[in-house]
Amino acid sequence: VPRIVDHHQRRREVSAATLRVVVRDGLSGVTIRAVARESGWSTGVLNHYFENKQALLFAALREAATQGAHNLARIAASKKEPLEMIRAMLEEFLPLDERRRGMCEVFIYFYGETVADPTMAAEMRSYHTNWRALVCTAVVQGQADGSIRPDLDPVLTAEVLVAVTDGFGLQASMDPVLASHRRQRRHVQEWLRYVSK
Amino acid sequence: VPRIVDHHQRRREVSAATLRVVVRDGLSGVTIRAVARESGWSTGVLNHYFENKQALLFAALREAATQGAHNLARIAASKKEPLEMIRAMLEEFLPLDERRRGMCEVFIYFYGETVADPTMAAEMRSYHTNWRALVCTAVVQGQADGSIRPDLDPVLTAEVLVAVTDGFGLQASMDPVLASHRRQRRHVQEWLRYVSK
Repeated sequence: VPRIVDHHQRRREVSAATLRVVVRDGLSGVTIRAVARESGWSTGVLNHYFENKQALLFAALREAATQGAHNLARIAASKKEPLEMIRAMLEEFLPLDERRRGMCEVFIYFYGETVADPTMAAEMRSYHTNWRALVCTAVVQGQADGSIRPDLDPVLTAEVLVAVTDGFGLQASMDPVLASHRRQRRHVQEWLRYVSK
Repeated sequence: VPRIVDHHQRRREVSAATLRVVVRDGLSGVTIRAVARESGWSTGVLNHYFENKQALLFAALREAATQGAHNLARIAASKKEPLEMIRAMLEEFLPLDERRRGMCEVFIYFYGETVADPTMAAEMRSYHTNWRALVCTAVVQGQADGSIRPDLDPVLTAEVLVAVTDGFGLQASMDPVLASHRRQRRHVQEWLRYVSK
């Protein structure tokens, strides 16, 4: 009886395993061998699905983006106060724990690829657009319930909040001083104060 | 008579030529051949100084950082109003013309390298630290002359301004909508409004 292989499922398992290696050992810890160990598949099977380390890292980016989009949607559907929703939507992409530090690393690595690769730039743009749209909706909700300043333009405000989070996350990923929990939380507090009524 | 070669001078000429190629043709336009044409040196000479394309791009990063630091120092030494100084210090790193778009591209490309290369991370960190310190000084000057809100912490404020500029410049480099002059100027205006008294 021939073995039935769910290729899609297997790729996702390997992608998730790669992301776990990044979270645990950093991006430089990703090798075909390490991912084989983590996923339980042989290096032969991995080589069948992923041409090289770069292909594995790209799979980890897709996995990180899928998890990030899922978490944003969950926050948007929660019954939280708008300001708390915005806090959670920004903190999802700050290096506040090992999981999010790993996700930041994968995104930053591929930011570097966007400048010479229009397809990668388009993919990143779509992630940013989704993130901004959900923050914008939360800003509008906060203006409706009176918790957010009514004079703010929601689109511009979402752009500012997503830009400052992205830029701070990037810089904190290279700078242990900025990466301290206390400093990161103080920043989020300041950004929320800027929008609060 | 042996020809006297100023190796340092020659490297800088090639670095500047590489950066000009990035500004004119984008990062993907950088090849040994294109830089040879731009610099007037042969591909043989270039290969003597730069091992490969990556080495040329790294030279362009150093050149961009040198020019950026020079421009920041010039702004800091100008007799401008503090808010105008801050505006100029932020606009220096936004893709507002071809020169600055090229500089942003080179920085973003090497941001990607920081996650697996601690030496590169340390180098980027030093650029950010210098940028923040000069913005911080301008914030303190603005608080002294009454143009900037006295309740702001100057260190935190400089961190916010540099983070939002970096994040917005990054996203605008992948997104023509954000990259419009009008949108970029509107953002800078909003960020200055946030610190203005």
